[in-house]
Amino acid sequence: MALKTPEQYYESLKDLHPTAYILGEKVENVHEHPLIKHMTASVAKTFEMENDEEGKKYLVTKSDLTDEEASRFLKFYRSPEDLLAKVRMLKFLSHNIGGCYMRCTGMDAINSVGIEAYNCDQKYGTNYWDRLVDFVKFMQKNDYVLFSGVTDVKGDRSKRPSQQTDPDMYLRVVDRNKDGIVVRGAKIHQTGSLCAHWGIIVPTREMREADKDYAVCFAYPMDSENAIYVYGRGTLESRAIEGCDLGNVEFSKFAPMIIFKDLFVPWDKVFLCGEYEYAGNMVRNFGNYHRHSHGGCKCGVGDVLIGAAATAADYNGLPNVSHINNKLAEMLKVTEAIYGCSIAASVEATETPSGIYNVDPVLANTSKLYEGKELAEVIRLMIEIAGGMVADVPSEKDFSNPDIGPLLQKYLKGVDGVSTEDRIRIFRLIEKLAFESRDIVSNIHGAGSPETHRMTILRNANIEAKKKLAKKLAGIKEE
Amino acid sequence: MALKTPEQYYESLKDLHPTAYILGEKVENVHEHPLIKHMTASVAKTFEMENDEEGKKYLVTKSDLTDEEASRFLKFYRSPEDLLAKVRMLKFLSHNIGGCYMRCTGMDAINSVGIEAYNCDQKYGTNYWDRLVDFVKFMQKNDYVLFSGVTDVKGDRSKRPSQQTDPDMYLRVVDRNKDGIVVRGAKIHQTGSLCAHWGIIVPTREMREADKDYAVCFAYPMDSENAIYVYGRGTLESRAIEGCDLGNVEFSKFAPMIIFKDLFVPWDKVFLCGEYEYAGNMVRNFGNYHRHSHGGCKCGVGDVLIGAAATAADYNGLPNVSHINNKLAEMLKVTEAIYGCSIAASVEATETPSGIYNVDPVLANTSKLYEGKELAEVIRLMIEIAGGMVADVPSEKDFSNPDIGPLLQKYLKGVDGVSTEDRIRIFRLIEKLAFESRDIVSNIHGAGSPETHRMTILRNANIEAKKKLAKKLAGIKEE
Amino acid sequence: MALKTPEQYYESLKDLHPTAYILGEKVENVHEHPLIKHMTASVAKTFEMENDEEGKKYLVTKSDLTDEEASRFLKFYRSPEDLLAKVRMLKFLSHNIGGCYMRCTGMDAINSVGIEAYNCDQKYGTNYWDRLVDFVKFMQKNDYVLFSGVTDVKGDRSKRPSQQTDPDMYLRVVDRNKDGIVVRGAKIHQTGSLCAHWGIIVPTREMREADKDYAVCFAYPMDSENAIYVYGRGTLESRAIEGCDLGNVEFSKFAPMIIFKDLFVPWDKVFLCGEYEYAGNMVRNFGNYHRHSHGGCKCGVGDVLIGAAATAADYNGLPNVSHINNKLAEMLKVTEAIYGCSIAASVEATETPSGIYNVDPVLANTSKLYEGKELAEVIRLMIEIAGGMVADVPSEKDFSNPDIGPLLQKYLKGVDGVSTEDRIRIFRLIEKLAFESRDIVSNIHGAGSPETHRMTILRNANIEAKKKLAKKLAGIKEE
Amino acid sequence: MALKTPEQYYESLKDLHPTAYILGEKVENVHEHPLIKHMTASVAKTFEMENDEEGKKYLVTKSDLTDEEASRFLKFYRSPEDLLAKVRMLKFLSHNIGGCYMRCTGMDAINSVGIEAYNCDQKYGTNYWDRLVDFVKFMQKNDYVLFSGVTDVKGDRSKRPSQQTDPDMYLRVVDRNKDGIVVRGAKIHQTGSLCAHWGIIVPTREMREADKDYAVCFAYPMDSENAIYVYGRGTLESRAIEGCDLGNVEFSKFAPMIIFKDLFVPWDKVFLCGEYEYAGNMVRNFGNYHRHSHGGCKCGVGDVLIGAAATAADYNGLPNVSHINNKLAEMLKVTEAIYGCSIAASVEATETPSGIYNVDPVLANTSKLYEGKELAEVIRLMIEIAGGMVADVPSEKDFSNPDIGPLLQKYLKGVDGVSTEDRIRIFRLIEKLAFESRDIVSNIHGAGSPETHRMTILRNANIEAKKKLAKKLAGIKEE
Repeated sequence: MALKTPEQYYESLKDLHPTAYILGEKVENVHEHPLIKHMTASVAKTFEMENDEEGKKYLVTKSDLTDEEASRFLKFYRSPEDLLAKVRMLKFLSHNIGGCYMRCTGMDAINSVGIEAYNCDQKYGTNYWDRLVDFVKFMQKNDYVLFSGVTDVKGDRSKRPSQQTDPDMYLRVVDRNKDGIVVRGAKIHQTGSLCAHWGIIVPTREMREADKDYAVCFAYPMDSENAIYVYGRGTLESRAIEGCDLGNVEFSKFAPMIIFKDLFVPWDKVFLCGEYEYAGNMVRNFGNYHRHSHGGCKCGVGDVLIGAAATAADYNGLPNVSHINNKLAEMLKVTEAIYGCSIAASVEATETPSGIYNVDPVLANTSKLYEGKELAEVIRLMIEIAGGMVADVPSEKDFSNPDIGPLLQKYLKGVDGVSTEDRIRIFRLIEKLAFESRDIVSNIHGAGSPETHRMTILRNANIEAKKKLAKKLAGIKEE
Repeated sequence: MALKTPEQYYESLKDLHPTAYILGEKVENVHEHPLIKHMTASVAKTFEMENDEEGKKYLVTKSDLTDEEASRFLKFYRSPEDLLAKVRMLKFLSHNIGGCYMRCTGMDAINSVGIEAYNCDQKYGTNYWDRLVDFVKFMQKNDYVLFSGVTDVKGDRSKRPSQQTDPDMYLRVVDRNKDGIVVRGAKIHQTGSLCAHWGIIVPTREMREADKDYAVCFAYPMDSENAIYVYGRGTLESRAIEGCDLGNVEFSKFAPMIIFKDLFVPWDKVFLCGEYEYAGNMVRNFGNYHRHSHGGCKCGVGDVLIGAAATAADYNGLPNVSHINNKLAEMLKVTEAIYGCSIAASVEATETPSGIYNVDPVLANTSKLYEGKELAEVIRLMIEIAGGMVADVPSEKDFSNPDIGPLLQKYLKGVDGVSTEDRIRIFRLIEKLAFESRDIVSNIHGAGSPETHRMTILRNANIEAKKKLAKKLAGIKEE
Repeated sequence: MALKTPEQYYESLKDLHPTAYILGEKVENVHEHPLIKHMTASVAKTFEMENDEEGKKYLVTKSDLTDEEASRFLKFYRSPEDLLAKVRMLKFLSHNIGGCYMRCTGMDAINSVGIEAYNCDQKYGTNYWDRLVDFVKFMQKNDYVLFSGVTDVKGDRSKRPSQQTDPDMYLRVVDRNKDGIVVRGAKIHQTGSLCAHWGIIVPTREMREADKDYAVCFAYPMDSENAIYVYGRGTLESRAIEGCDLGNVEFSKFAPMIIFKDLFVPWDKVFLCGEYEYAGNMVRNFGNYHRHSHGGCKCGVGDVLIGAAATAADYNGLPNVSHINNKLAEMLKVTEAIYGCSIAASVEATETPSGIYNVDPVLANTSKLYEGKELAEVIRLMIEIAGGMVADVPSEKDFSNPDIGPLLQKYLKGVDGVSTEDRIRIFRLIEKLAFESRDIVSNIHGAGSPETHRMTILRNANIEAKKKLAKKLAGIKEE
Repeated sequence: MALKTPEQYYESLKDLHPTAYILGEKVENVHEHPLIKHMTASVAKTFEMENDEEGKKYLVTKSDLTDEEASRFLKFYRSPEDLLAKVRMLKFLSHNIGGCYMRCTGMDAINSVGIEAYNCDQKYGTNYWDRLVDFVKFMQKNDYVLFSGVTDVKGDRSKRPSQQTDPDMYLRVVDRNKDGIVVRGAKIHQTGSLCAHWGIIVPTREMREADKDYAVCFAYPMDSENAIYVYGRGTLESRAIEGCDLGNVEFSKFAPMIIFKDLFVPWDKVFLCGEYEYAGNMVRNFGNYHRHSHGGCKCGVGDVLIGAAATAADYNGLPNVSHINNKLAEMLKVTEAIYGCSIAASVEATETPSGIYNVDPVLANTSKLYEGKELAEVIRLMIEIAGGMVADVPSEKDFSNPDIGPLLQKYLKGVDGVSTEDRIRIFRLIEKLAFESRDIVSNIHGAGSPETHRMTILRNANIEAKKKLAKKLAGIKEE
């Protein structure tokens, strides 16, 4: 097969039977659940785009492994151009979805794992790289959706994995034999994982020798029996459950926790197991790639924020007002910085021994820092422009009530020529964009927290070289 | 009667039968509705505090009208000390409630109306001031809760009231006779109005002669037949409806829209009717007072934000970490500026002809500008400190499920010595503090929008005097 | 004598013969030196104001020690009103001087020393308080100018005083006998010290037992033989030396370093000597008072910044432009926050055992943090409004040149009705306000550095109490 | 000739005899004047780099006109790679010079003029493009330095050129004949113009038909008799004049005003004359190119700021302190955003009919907005890290004084192992970086003022397309 259609994607989900709990109940046909289906729709949209004339340009490429067409979501980054193409693809998709479509985590993971699998093989004679290549070919061939699981639950954050009171606070190998390994632990914030076919599990931090059982990386079929998915509740569930006041009428996001209850993984799907010195770089690579992904994605979402604010201003009767234009310019400043730094991080990428290109870490993390802090101000400005109605407009159900519906129609009208209904829709969209906890918290903590970004920048910025520049200009001779 | 107890307050609500719709349905015992009762509890808490030894110091005063004990919420501001006492009372209450208790709008309204009622009487020989004094005495005597309705729905915002396509987009007098007036229109964002006994309706903007039917101010019993309350939906309804994952376990906020369907108001409750030149000052006074109220209130909430963030850090195993302390200091900087400017606006208050003191408008609006913009950063910092779990922890319902409850208990544990349950509680509180749309949007648009605050500052800051200072220092002679 | 006139002040300076070096040369009549005289003029202006009808209200008070008129600059803070009066006096003076007049350091020092002198006497039976009171009476009687010396040169900042390679990096007692003590060390950034009559020297940090020789506080006549003043060069010297292009045509600032070369101090002028546990609080008190002083002072300067920017806009032909008004509002927001927090820190002052009132440390330091960071943005906005001419307009000397003077007159004209000369004057004032290093660096580091302010806020903000509030609202029971 | 050496450059300056005034005096050998020679040294450094092994990679390219080696400063941008190379060249040079070397204005001008010269020829059959190409070949052949003059003095900024009271407030054609044109007017802020061989004069704004005499573009030899240069005074002149306390020991900047007193220009050096519809695009192109240049340049300077701050921290004894590292990360965040957006603006460049590539205007202006506002915070952070000594350390002259020199050596020592002299040098460099008015004001107003950048972003950002995205996601059907 080449590329999946949305229909084929939906069909393929029917074969998956994950163990999933949502708001206290075990759920069977999970992909149809109202709290899941809007993100499944996001993923399906990516398949629609793989088959769309314009979308194809962004999403489809030639595999470097098989010489056949493949989804960019399953390709190694073989050049700066691949990285540029990724940023542009994600911006394009965010324009069309207005939020998360999840497939970038798997894409970023195969690349970050690939670099270190190759390095590890060189040192230890392991064959992780070949296993990974086989796995990627298999995924490409089926155009499968891959999510990546990185974030452990972490317990006491002042302690390393092996120091925790409960040794399972980071995922670890609890048994191994000739066929494979058994892992235990939990990964949290696993965005969209229930919409995937496979998962690839990556260590969440650097490890030392004492932590070597925690230095494990592998792939598994998402509906393996011993993987339990527990829906993490966000802010706007009731809308999806009631099926009204959605804001973004088609798409949404969820992020369950996954508990690995002694899951068995055969060796051919294991890409690191005990070589602890590669764990840190795996997750650092992933972090840098994923912050780079955010650059494209969140700039795209930023365009939606700006468009929503400008539309609300129009509907309020305030098009082309000086202070609103000034705010739109401030919003653009931030979103373009997020985008621009990701583009630059692609251009300044460097090749690794594996042949995979790594993004420039300083620029990729700079992009993410703007997302982490300044994007919150963009969202605040959107609310400031839109006005107080974002807080508390009545529900679609009130509009349907014959007693008060006509009164609401009358009183919530804005400018002439725009229906009250459309005006309410834009306020609901803004509410969704501003208050969906999974998105907003992801802006801050997704792909690592701001302190991590700062540390990564500092570690990679070569402050010593900058000191030399200053000293030379000041006339200070260094011995 | 002197001061109500919470029980008396709850009892008094039983006599009220407002016309109310919530999520499409007409509701009878509205005060017991899960979406209403948490704010009723907030108001009840103020009555508890009126009867509490420490609370009394903040909430209870002697009436300047009757020489009896009265709630500060029903007192005229007769001195800078009254204004200081208000700020401190609101900070104290926010500490105990963590959000809105609504009674400040009525308090601010009787003062802002009072100043102009007096001025109008002086010019036109009306007797609005006496009517207002009688009304306030009546309210004090019964220790009633008063909300104030200011914000009209506004239609096309580029047009004045009398220019709107639909003349009802601002509340207006549609009829008048010897007994009273009939009003039509709608007020939106009427925080907590269903928890009050009476409402006082104030014009939302300055008016010109053509708008004189819109220059109307009056009080009405909240359950008047022709006042229809429509619940405005916010972000976290499902929690209150399900009764779990509340975050703030006792208190919350709602803000319905009120439609005045030809409501009759007798003359003795009318405090302005047609004298359009006082409309602007009424709402400007109200705005300044209410921004000043926010200064106390939101600094109090800010202390809760800071406390929640610091608790989350402790529970994550990260007490006394340098970068977290740095963030806490940034949070304090903003919340103390909000508070400090409100305190200063009290100290620099000036007396009006009515004997009521007006706050310093520059300082009061400065306080609100920090709330409008920088408080969003305080909230973002809270999330940054707390970590990703704010986004999507599983529900209490999942914890109750025998299959997965124990696993969640195990895997969501933080530092030793703190139960998983308490850790989840703090994340839920943070979610509530960060994502309750009624609160967050109120930070920005409550008591007027930031552009209004900026204009008020500019108008009152005496830029001309500052130019003179600069010119003199520069050696520029002015003729 | 009661209060000095400017003439008396100038006369009194003639009796002072300090050892002073400026740009490499020993200078005899230092008060007439072009780099000194503009600050002497600032101090003289304060005496003018003590004798001015309006100024008197701000600057003159009744001594609490002698019941006679005294300058506020020499008074103990006996009430919150004294602290409010200080803030307002400083704002008033900054309006008239546009920069530093220096007398606040002495005022803040006698109060901060007073609190701890009293405390020390209570514990150790010393008589520092009485000595200090006598000294203050003496100063009041003569209406002398007092500066305070706090900041040591500090050497290696990671080490305590007693750990330094060179023991003189903090000022210390090197000898003592029955008549007095001998001190050695250096104080830097001693703003305006050459314009004073006396200095009061205060420890710069907390001390431990090993540092007890460094725990010393005393007063000395500024022209003592063993005190050497070395002018610290700033950015705009050439203007003062050439006597043109001054910007602020009358007033300026300087800040020499003072080297104490084994200075003898008699016991009656010693206010601490070895009781190391009071050193920290002395400087902390001083820091808090002086940050509070900055609140009044820099808000006053801020008004000049705003006035200068608005005047430049007028002169450029851009009065009442939307984006400029928006920037003026942002400038006001910051300057009013600086002021408001200082006012609030006065209102919330607390009495110490000595009867002197201490400012609220959280609010005083909050004020200073806004000065330290956001005032830089106010200055940047001033430049943004004024335009590029701030960078590089030709000199007054060019205007006087007959060849090019007329051409400059022609080409540097702005709006009709304003002379080219006045337009240039305002650009020069803006240059002075934006680029005088002594002022700009003082905004950041004066009265301690921002990290100190943050630490002071954190230490005083009672985070534990805030945690309790959050826990209670979240439903967390604490045992 | 191919490329000039620094010696050849200095030699070539001897043939130039411009009419120049500095601080009121006419100056003959202007290139040796202490206020000029440090910038001449900067330009000479670029020639050194053209002949340096590493520098060559950045500065030397093959001419697209002659197939010979040429300086990048004289090349048309024929591809995104040319634009990337420009950004990297400027960053490299700023690393080595720490400030302005001026040659980018000429480079940006030939490209911005080229695009419109070509367009104009297509419409009107003029031959501006060929003239320009000939001029550029001539410049390349001689490796001449070209500055560009854009900013007129502007008079009343609310009026268009033809509306000014004095018609000369914008440069204009006052006469024309078969040989050429005569121009009158003045250009201000002409950075480094006295170090160039030729100037290219570009309109400063869009023009309408009434302004067509102002729509003029031409080149002229910098020492033409009727061009008068008047030095614009900045903040730190005395250092250069005295030859000490320089900070940046070799390099500096100046920016005179140039008065064109009826200068004659032959037709072959005229590139626009009256075709007013191209004036606006010429300066808009220039603005976008030059903001893009700032991206490389100021990121390079930013690295020096960061290096200077980090060195000062080391010398103060505070290496690797948490809060300082945090500040360094904040500084990097801004400088990398400035750089990243310029890199991205290169990658997203588009070809014009002339074959010259135009940068992406949104990204180029975003870069400049960060320079205009956030770079000021980077500078403030540098001062915050370095400490108060930036304000007012004594002069080198004091260190040379035998009485106090040894005392200063003793007392201004920082950490062991670093000489007092080197410590002072770094404070002086920081002073220069923070307080040189020509640099700081250029950060804000260079290449246009922030409002221009905002307007350019808004005009090019396609808000309408963003509205459509939002509407689609909200479910709003557009007809």
